[in-house]
Amino acid sequence: MFLKNAWYVAAWSHEIKRELVPRWIAGEPLVLYRTEAGQAVALEDRCPHRRAALSLGRLVGDGVQCGYHGVTLDSSGVCVKIPGQERIPPTMKARSYRVVEKWQWVWVWLGEPEAADEALIPDFRWNSEPGWVYTGGTIDVKANYQLLTDNLLDLTHETYVHAKTIGNRAVIETPMSCEVQGNEVHLQRIMPNTPPPPLFAKVRGTDAPIDRWQVIRFQVPANISIDARAYPPGTQDMTHALRWFSINSITPVDATTSRYYWTITRCFAQDDTALTDLIHKAILATFMEDVVVIEAQQVRIQTDRADKQEVGIRADAGALGARRILERLIRQETEQAI
Amino acid sequence: MFLKNAWYVAAWSHEIKRELVPRWIAGEPLVLYRTEAGQAVALEDRCPHRRAALSLGRLVGDGVQCGYHGVTLDSSGVCVKIPGQERIPPTMKARSYRVVEKWQWVWVWLGEPEAADEALIPDFRWNSEPGWVYTGGTIDVKANYQLLTDNLLDLTHETYVHAKTIGNRAVIETPMSCEVQGNEVHLQRIMPNTPPPPLFAKVRGTDAPIDRWQVIRFQVPANISIDARAYPPGTQDMTHALRWFSINSITPVDATTSRYYWTITRCFAQDDTALTDLIHKAILATFMEDVVVIEAQQVRIQTDRADKQEVGIRADAGALGARRILERLIRQETEQAI
Amino acid sequence: MFLKNAWYVAAWSHEIKRELVPRWIAGEPLVLYRTEAGQAVALEDRCPHRRAALSLGRLVGDGVQCGYHGVTLDSSGVCVKIPGQERIPPTMKARSYRVVEKWQWVWVWLGEPEAADEALIPDFRWNSEPGWVYTGGTIDVKANYQLLTDNLLDLTHETYVHAKTIGNRAVIETPMSCEVQGNEVHLQRIMPNTPPPPLFAKVRGTDAPIDRWQVIRFQVPANISIDARAYPPGTQDMTHALRWFSINSITPVDATTSRYYWTITRCFAQDDTALTDLIHKAILATFMEDVVVIEAQQVRIQTDRADKQEVGIRADAGALGARRILERLIRQETEQAI
Repeated sequence: MFLKNAWYVAAWSHEIKRELVPRWIAGEPLVLYRTEAGQAVALEDRCPHRRAALSLGRLVGDGVQCGYHGVTLDSSGVCVKIPGQERIPPTMKARSYRVVEKWQWVWVWLGEPEAADEALIPDFRWNSEPGWVYTGGTIDVKANYQLLTDNLLDLTHETYVHAKTIGNRAVIETPMSCEVQGNEVHLQRIMPNTPPPPLFAKVRGTDAPIDRWQVIRFQVPANISIDARAYPPGTQDMTHALRWFSINSITPVDATTSRYYWTITRCFAQDDTALTDLIHKAILATFMEDVVVIEAQQVRIQTDRADKQEVGIRADAGALGARRILERLIRQETEQAI
Repeated sequence: MFLKNAWYVAAWSHEIKRELVPRWIAGEPLVLYRTEAGQAVALEDRCPHRRAALSLGRLVGDGVQCGYHGVTLDSSGVCVKIPGQERIPPTMKARSYRVVEKWQWVWVWLGEPEAADEALIPDFRWNSEPGWVYTGGTIDVKANYQLLTDNLLDLTHETYVHAKTIGNRAVIETPMSCEVQGNEVHLQRIMPNTPPPPLFAKVRGTDAPIDRWQVIRFQVPANISIDARAYPPGTQDMTHALRWFSINSITPVDATTSRYYWTITRCFAQDDTALTDLIHKAILATFMEDVVVIEAQQVRIQTDRADKQEVGIRADAGALGARRILERLIRQETEQAI
Repeated sequence: MFLKNAWYVAAWSHEIKRELVPRWIAGEPLVLYRTEAGQAVALEDRCPHRRAALSLGRLVGDGVQCGYHGVTLDSSGVCVKIPGQERIPPTMKARSYRVVEKWQWVWVWLGEPEAADEALIPDFRWNSEPGWVYTGGTIDVKANYQLLTDNLLDLTHETYVHAKTIGNRAVIETPMSCEVQGNEVHLQRIMPNTPPPPLFAKVRGTDAPIDRWQVIRFQVPANISIDARAYPPGTQDMTHALRWFSINSITPVDATTSRYYWTITRCFAQDDTALTDLIHKAILATFMEDVVVIEAQQVRIQTDRADKQEVGIRADAGALGARRILERLIRQETEQAI
């Protein structure tokens, strides 16, 4: 089950141009493109005529001409032309989705357009903030999107999965605070005077101890920002700190596949492209370690008894909090629909 | 659902020799071969003993010996030998199918053999007519067979899908007449004094205007002939005309895959093998353009709500007429079976 | 359906070392490894915490540390460590399986460990018997495991499937005796003064006639030994005989895939490694001939009507006897569970 009244990342802004791009979100096919004026558009990628893929058609001005029989829709999905006839049935329209571009990404609202609320787009300002520079990418994962949310909300896994880059013993040895605030989950782990994990040592050029901070924020349906900091012990001195945000948004493709959008955005050595490259490669390798674990987990969940109870531990608090919020919102949505 | 009391193309005649050929039709496995006297035979490709594939066995005279335990069936599917025992249970037989070879193809009747009526084989005489020469092939398509029928019964798609070969604006700008006659659909589009589509110009060696005719005939379950003509305007002069038939028979492999048998058969420049080659390549490329569109359409239908209503347009008349005929025949067949 | 209270081969003994090996048996994921003392261990390959694959974790002494969040289990599946907390919930344990190593193979008991009875491990002593030398392997087959049992219990198929190696007309022409004894099926075919099949002629270096014996024993759930002998006619003279056991155990991976463990173990020319190699290659080729037939059979069963009755023949006696035993045991097990 997916939350419909929510924003999902459909693409990077730079991916959407004057051409038709197909994307599946929560089991629905969408086609994205940009109008002549540069506005991003998302329509259902099914022609209302015979359900051909509109994305195999072509742009005609701000509209789309289906590549099968030439039915032409405007950017709101309303049919403006049917070859060979004057009359256009009022039902000849494709579903259109509200689209907002923010924080480098194209967000689509899967619910009714009139219910779309821009204020619900998660706060990922560091992707676009002056003084910050980001690197990032997209990863296709054969697993339910919530397994990726779970992953990011319990960073004790860094110790086991990512010992080569961002994990070490300090992460599991330090308790994390967890607070649910409305539809958000906030987690915080502060590791004072601790050895840096390998990637931090490499980026900072020293393996001197650090005060390491992880400040995590979950926003529905599957958005997680991690404010990662490393200060010289006892200082909170930003001039000698490593500080970046790990920004993550996971878009369900269907119940068992997901598209994972990520950035690392930092506020130091912004012009150092070699550093950007080093961070990009290390973080991508780190996430690919997660993908191996999570895809195997997905198989083991699918083949297990449906009523199997997992056994909880303290470190699950964030993931369970997030799951409960989403469950409640999906239940409310379903009840309203009845 | 498939019409059982109907003929389906199982193979090209030249494909069936003194060897066992497996083919799936409407979800059923068939094995085809030729007797010593040259008669084409089709049996269920499952041994009645343990359901091994008979097609993995070998021909023994006019019969088939199962390659697993040696059960031998004659060309009517009746068991004539069981290794190690004298007694042959009367139930030891494989289903046999009525087979007729006509118009270069091997047709099998999926219903009860005694109900088989040769008069129901579609009239595709131009594949075999003296004075006509054909070229053709077989294409495997990951889509329900009716999506291919639909495609051929609404040629307005030529304008959008096939602009490089047989489509141009005239096709969508000219209305088509449509008439249902019994279990057939007849369509006709005559485009007077119109620019030729690219392939016609190439074949005729001139881009002078033509009178272009498309005379289409649908015969159940999925057979379409298109009588395509291009005359010098106002003449109906066959000596300077392009005239060919596009002959099409689509065999369902199962609900979502099909095997598409096609020919182009012409009555001009019959000995020009370079021309045959040019037409073959152009038409194959044209059909492969359809396959891309139709396979994407299949995915979008399968992932859509089951109760989704498509929105009809005038150009659908032929496709809808054919679907209604087939639906009625399948319903009658089902009711009779009860 | 699978018999749970039974031993299944999970691996060759030499495959299990100080590393984690994942194996699926009867739809369940298992992880196998060896303790420091050399004892083989099998646990459910799902962490009780979040169902990650334990096989992606690492060995810690005699236990396994999950590679996701570090939950550590001992070799009985009981949790001994949860990072970040003292308290260990008593439900935090993975299922453990009884394991016995015997006849070169690692056997696991799929039922409740306390019900495990070593006496039920099939008698495959010739894999380990002094004076005998074996060669063997593992074959993955896309078919239900019982289709492989059927195959081995009706050797008339040798005549048709294996004419290049172990089959000839004598096999089908000689009747086989069949006797059900408790949960075992015993079959015997003695072919006096018969031409040797090609592989026997090659191994013995002569195509002089032989007395050929096949003494077959089925033990639940899917274990078959074939005592194969070729004597100079009328002699039972072991000094000039070919005698080997074909030892076979088929482990269901799930309902439609299987892992087939096999050996050929002989008591002549034990030190002739060229002969071992010759036999290995010929038998592997022979079994791959079976795989082609059986995988096609599986497809034809799956696509057939569920209520289809196969037609029995005399040669089925062994296969049907074995199926009836297994059916009865599975039914008993199911009734006890209610």
